[in-house]
Amino acid sequence: MPFRSGIHFLQLPGPTNVPERILRAMSKPTIDHRGPEFKEFGAKILKELKDVFQASEYVFVYPASGSGSWESGLVNTLSAGDKVLRFDAGFFSEMWGLVATRLGLEVQVAPWDWRLPVDPAALVKLLTADPNHEIKAVLIVHNETATGVVTDIPAIRRAMDDVGHPALLMVDAVSSACAMEYRHDDWGVDVTICGSQKGFMLPPGLSFCAVSSKALEVHRSTKGFRSYWDWTDQMTFEETGYFPYTPATNLLYGLEEALKMLREEGLQNTHARHARLGEATRRAVEAWGLQNFCSDPSAVSAAATSVLMPEGTDANLVRTICLEKFDMSLGGGLGRLNGEVFRIGHLGDVNDLMISGTLCGVEMALSIAGVPHQSGGVGAALEFLASQ
Amino acid sequence: MPFRSGIHFLQLPGPTNVPERILRAMSKPTIDHRGPEFKEFGAKILKELKDVFQASEYVFVYPASGSGSWESGLVNTLSAGDKVLRFDAGFFSEMWGLVATRLGLEVQVAPWDWRLPVDPAALVKLLTADPNHEIKAVLIVHNETATGVVTDIPAIRRAMDDVGHPALLMVDAVSSACAMEYRHDDWGVDVTICGSQKGFMLPPGLSFCAVSSKALEVHRSTKGFRSYWDWTDQMTFEETGYFPYTPATNLLYGLEEALKMLREEGLQNTHARHARLGEATRRAVEAWGLQNFCSDPSAVSAAATSVLMPEGTDANLVRTICLEKFDMSLGGGLGRLNGEVFRIGHLGDVNDLMISGTLCGVEMALSIAGVPHQSGGVGAALEFLASQ
Amino acid sequence: MPFRSGIHFLQLPGPTNVPERILRAMSKPTIDHRGPEFKEFGAKILKELKDVFQASEYVFVYPASGSGSWESGLVNTLSAGDKVLRFDAGFFSEMWGLVATRLGLEVQVAPWDWRLPVDPAALVKLLTADPNHEIKAVLIVHNETATGVVTDIPAIRRAMDDVGHPALLMVDAVSSACAMEYRHDDWGVDVTICGSQKGFMLPPGLSFCAVSSKALEVHRSTKGFRSYWDWTDQMTFEETGYFPYTPATNLLYGLEEALKMLREEGLQNTHARHARLGEATRRAVEAWGLQNFCSDPSAVSAAATSVLMPEGTDANLVRTICLEKFDMSLGGGLGRLNGEVFRIGHLGDVNDLMISGTLCGVEMALSIAGVPHQSGGVGAALEFLASQ
Amino acid sequence: MPFRSGIHFLQLPGPTNVPERILRAMSKPTIDHRGPEFKEFGAKILKELKDVFQASEYVFVYPASGSGSWESGLVNTLSAGDKVLRFDAGFFSEMWGLVATRLGLEVQVAPWDWRLPVDPAALVKLLTADPNHEIKAVLIVHNETATGVVTDIPAIRRAMDDVGHPALLMVDAVSSACAMEYRHDDWGVDVTICGSQKGFMLPPGLSFCAVSSKALEVHRSTKGFRSYWDWTDQMTFEETGYFPYTPATNLLYGLEEALKMLREEGLQNTHARHARLGEATRRAVEAWGLQNFCSDPSAVSAAATSVLMPEGTDANLVRTICLEKFDMSLGGGLGRLNGEVFRIGHLGDVNDLMISGTLCGVEMALSIAGVPHQSGGVGAALEFLASQ
Repeated sequence: MPFRSGIHFLQLPGPTNVPERILRAMSKPTIDHRGPEFKEFGAKILKELKDVFQASEYVFVYPASGSGSWESGLVNTLSAGDKVLRFDAGFFSEMWGLVATRLGLEVQVAPWDWRLPVDPAALVKLLTADPNHEIKAVLIVHNETATGVVTDIPAIRRAMDDVGHPALLMVDAVSSACAMEYRHDDWGVDVTICGSQKGFMLPPGLSFCAVSSKALEVHRSTKGFRSYWDWTDQMTFEETGYFPYTPATNLLYGLEEALKMLREEGLQNTHARHARLGEATRRAVEAWGLQNFCSDPSAVSAAATSVLMPEGTDANLVRTICLEKFDMSLGGGLGRLNGEVFRIGHLGDVNDLMISGTLCGVEMALSIAGVPHQSGGVGAALEFLASQ
Repeated sequence: MPFRSGIHFLQLPGPTNVPERILRAMSKPTIDHRGPEFKEFGAKILKELKDVFQASEYVFVYPASGSGSWESGLVNTLSAGDKVLRFDAGFFSEMWGLVATRLGLEVQVAPWDWRLPVDPAALVKLLTADPNHEIKAVLIVHNETATGVVTDIPAIRRAMDDVGHPALLMVDAVSSACAMEYRHDDWGVDVTICGSQKGFMLPPGLSFCAVSSKALEVHRSTKGFRSYWDWTDQMTFEETGYFPYTPATNLLYGLEEALKMLREEGLQNTHARHARLGEATRRAVEAWGLQNFCSDPSAVSAAATSVLMPEGTDANLVRTICLEKFDMSLGGGLGRLNGEVFRIGHLGDVNDLMISGTLCGVEMALSIAGVPHQSGGVGAALEFLASQ
Repeated sequence: MPFRSGIHFLQLPGPTNVPERILRAMSKPTIDHRGPEFKEFGAKILKELKDVFQASEYVFVYPASGSGSWESGLVNTLSAGDKVLRFDAGFFSEMWGLVATRLGLEVQVAPWDWRLPVDPAALVKLLTADPNHEIKAVLIVHNETATGVVTDIPAIRRAMDDVGHPALLMVDAVSSACAMEYRHDDWGVDVTICGSQKGFMLPPGLSFCAVSSKALEVHRSTKGFRSYWDWTDQMTFEETGYFPYTPATNLLYGLEEALKMLREEGLQNTHARHARLGEATRRAVEAWGLQNFCSDPSAVSAAATSVLMPEGTDANLVRTICLEKFDMSLGGGLGRLNGEVFRIGHLGDVNDLMISGTLCGVEMALSIAGVPHQSGGVGAALEFLASQ
Repeated sequence: MPFRSGIHFLQLPGPTNVPERILRAMSKPTIDHRGPEFKEFGAKILKELKDVFQASEYVFVYPASGSGSWESGLVNTLSAGDKVLRFDAGFFSEMWGLVATRLGLEVQVAPWDWRLPVDPAALVKLLTADPNHEIKAVLIVHNETATGVVTDIPAIRRAMDDVGHPALLMVDAVSSACAMEYRHDDWGVDVTICGSQKGFMLPPGLSFCAVSSKALEVHRSTKGFRSYWDWTDQMTFEETGYFPYTPATNLLYGLEEALKMLREEGLQNTHARHARLGEATRRAVEAWGLQNFCSDPSAVSAAATSVLMPEGTDANLVRTICLEKFDMSLGGGLGRLNGEVFRIGHLGDVNDLMISGTLCGVEMALSIAGVPHQSGGVGAALEFLASQ
């Protein structure tokens, strides 16, 4: 790699820029995870993590990628042959479905427009068409990281309640947690899936799974082949302060610091900051005359914005210029969106000048790539940021 | 916790003392695991990791605990109802069996003496009694972390070959890798299981799985419900430099540094150092008039020594004194050995004076605890260390 | 302090943003500075440091601030009552003169315009008026950190040579080293003064002093009261690899890494990068309709730009807004310039997007502060950066 | 250098083992030392530092080696030609005298036995012989780092008071501070000299100078050539929170953490820990049949022990073996003691097992070097440590 001066702009929708406080916390010496010091430390983290998800039952913490918790949610509550419902609403919805299929579940896929949030009315219709309650779980991605479209989870819950369907509601909050409001208990979510490398500002390697009492009940009565992900084992952590197997101690040190930072900022302030940076980004996109891939203005994301390229232009060229000339990583179009969108992450440990510098990089790359656009995107963002 | 000066002596058989070089390497900024820099980095690690295991096919790296690779090995080559054979040779043998049972496998348990290595002759007898080859895999722990007993893997392989039994040979090398010679290919191992927090000197959070071409063949023809652990996905890493899902980037930075350190020392020198520290420890134990739990002198461990307590004394009291008075963590007796042994780790980033200080701590704790013993254990160790 | 997300923009003309590579290097364990490992390490640093200053004799490294080397240069070559000449060309020129006065030297001050570089012709005139060579040293600041004005050192040397004046030429390169070309030997400088916290990208705490053979000769024949700064002692470092007293070991680890980074980038590339960032900054200032405090376009600085405020506006208000609203530190007006200028550092470990973000912050702060200016500064900078 | 596993045993009487907490604190990003955050931070450190020295007036903090404060104390209170008194009581006493000589002071040297503390009665005699009060300052090293001999400072003060001599009392507490009781105010010390790399557990690079109101008075009336060390400038730090020149910010981060650790342990506990480790070391030395260089049992040091070698043996051989075979740095004999003693540091961030490991290394090195000695040194130390 050529020599690079200064800070790399890691403006992905994850992994996000890890604050140096967290990096330093992670460099503390590893301790005995069976000793009294860890016991106290583990119990503290668990309690604080519940506050973030607003989940009063359990939040399980796995040494794993976020995708591990997809598997955890599925194998703990479902048996091979069970049916789950997902909407074709984005790449991560697709991937989640693939995991379910591989684990032997039957996946009912409702066709959907990737540019729109899942419509509760559509869900009502699908659940109504399932009088025998064959659908055991509804899988919804809160913030589709691939599209920057946010689905209204409380409305989804109401839809399920309205038709009185007993399926579990499983929500992927991987890229929404910390960036926008999320209330596991109040919203009636049964299983919340999350990872460490986005709003939590940590490196990848930890996977979170918050569960409702209903999900636990289902778990207890579900036979299935599971060991690493088994919730019953994980519950011992809360009771004893010890993990069922060796935890990723140093990543947990980072988590402890992340939770401290979230408390210091105040979750509502964290959400407001993300909303602010998202708005600045969208103003720039609009001023450039480009389109937000999310076509529903009420469903735009505080975590990431997917920018749809004009016909005949290549999103990956913009990304390559950003990386090679300006040392900035943007997200690419995933799956069928490859080359058609690039994604700007405004998620995690980001502030006004970082997002300003980011938009400057994008504006320059658009010019260099010869993408037809209006100038003034950065100006529009600055005007917004200066005025608030 | 009370204030503690100086260095904590983490003399467990894992997690082990993480060198500051590795801790610092882990504190580098997280990068895009889909970018070109990671690609090069990932490919390099993978190659070097093969050298350590002496495995020419694949070594898979999971963001997971070591126990994750137990699951990986089983779900990728076996189907529910398949039979595996294990010996009742220690706590981790037991745990591995439990994982297999939970995953729906039938586990045949051969009774064994925890103080002895698995005898190839016993295996021959068991395999001979299986003319229909119902046993699909033989599970052997190379170095039983709970007992400090080492089983001779090449002899196990010869036993299987001698009777021409086609079962896969799966070996848990979690606490032997790097501490003693290990040759995945040459020894004919099909699946090697390992973790990061022992001989690799890393914090926990990475899980390794080395596989043979035979294991891969079996994998390809084995239907089963697996996603997170699926080898076919993992193989793309080697081919593309990219993980199938988000890898634990910062732990991989640590792994890169660990592999660098292992090369700098030279694997044979690393083994010799462990052998030396193990011998010093055993000389101290013998001089104290205590027993090594391992009752076969040809099967003693270079990684850890389990010390059997005299009747009527409590191993945990010795450990508590070491922790509270001398800020040293020793391993406890696991499972049925609780209270009966304590375990001294001499594994990982340890040197002569660290093991000397460790033995000093044990000698003082034995006195304080009133455990009947001869003085002179430290002296015997020093005499050995000074003479070599 | 309120909670701050993301990276602080430390856009001072020093201390500058310390790269994480250097921060990590500094966190290595302290070693014995009298042992063989240090000897090798010290010798290596010294050699590489000479390359940076392009100085073939000695570069002394003090555990001290940059101002320590002012004192070092003076006490090693001059005796109380000796006369030195300085131009009234900026705040640091003033401070250097103050140090000289306190050390008992007679300081002849040539009046000068702070907005202009020192004119060699003026120096010729002053030296011609000193036929008895009472002036023992000429003190010139290469890049006046307080004004962003660069004096042409080779031209100064030629002026001295032209009149055949034997005074020593002492140059303060504190904020120019690494940011722009500097050739101690070729330019005929006798004493070069420098510190660690600017172009060297290090935290403060190291002070550098490069000397010519002529300066060493003068040193040897100069009686004076000196101990900590004594060059004769320092010379033993080069010969033995050991410092005359305890060195700042961990800052030296940082220096080792900084020298490595400078080699990796290539000094000429480092200079070109600074020139580029300086040009971008000046284009923004010009587009805003504000004045560069440096009124000679051929003397503008690659390290820092001082922006002169319109009448009736307060530079410190702009700085306060930058700090409190945008978490960015700018330099203030020093001495008589307090409130009249603010200074943008584009020095050290800075890249395109960092300077872009910086200029965004300034543009927003100008608006918020109600400073009369044209919009478009950022746009002009981006246009330049994208086009190169 | 050959590859080294595990922790280096840095058992010098300075620099001492820097705790990882401090190393990590030092790796925080450098901030603007003229900004509001630093102001608060600087003021806090200064206050806490006074508590450690028990000094109510000023403690100045220089970016410098400890030897810088020798110079600071001298140039701020004395003028060229003034007389100071020192005892020939060790290497650092010698060096301090050399600094004074170089700074133009007249140094009266009282012959003394390096193996003994300075006797107040001898001082009485010398001061009585100075009826005109030509001696302006008495220079005493509290704990002679080179010999491990401690002089009783309150008794020295009483001696000066008894004869009513107005000389300033300057005390070098470089290796005693934090390791043993020290009371700047109560003991009537006028100038206390200290550095960062011993009891403060920091890397080298900070120099401390605590002063009495009498010293400040003398300072104000003393003309002299001084700039970097000038106390009047330094006093502005306390008043404004800002240093007169750029401070060593990252070392100050380390100091903040060190002060926190000292508070957490409690200064009296810190002293007791050092006393304990010193006693263990001396018991080992005695059991080996070797001599403590300090021949007065009431003057032994809690910071370091100098071990006198039997005739015909070479201390440096023992040190070389410790370094090369056991990766442990011991102190060598300084000046006239070169080869005759080696020094064991038991100072700073050290605990029972570290000192045990240290003594094991020494015992093995004595054997390997063929130094005539009794075995059992380690045993005697362990017996003591286990019994307390």
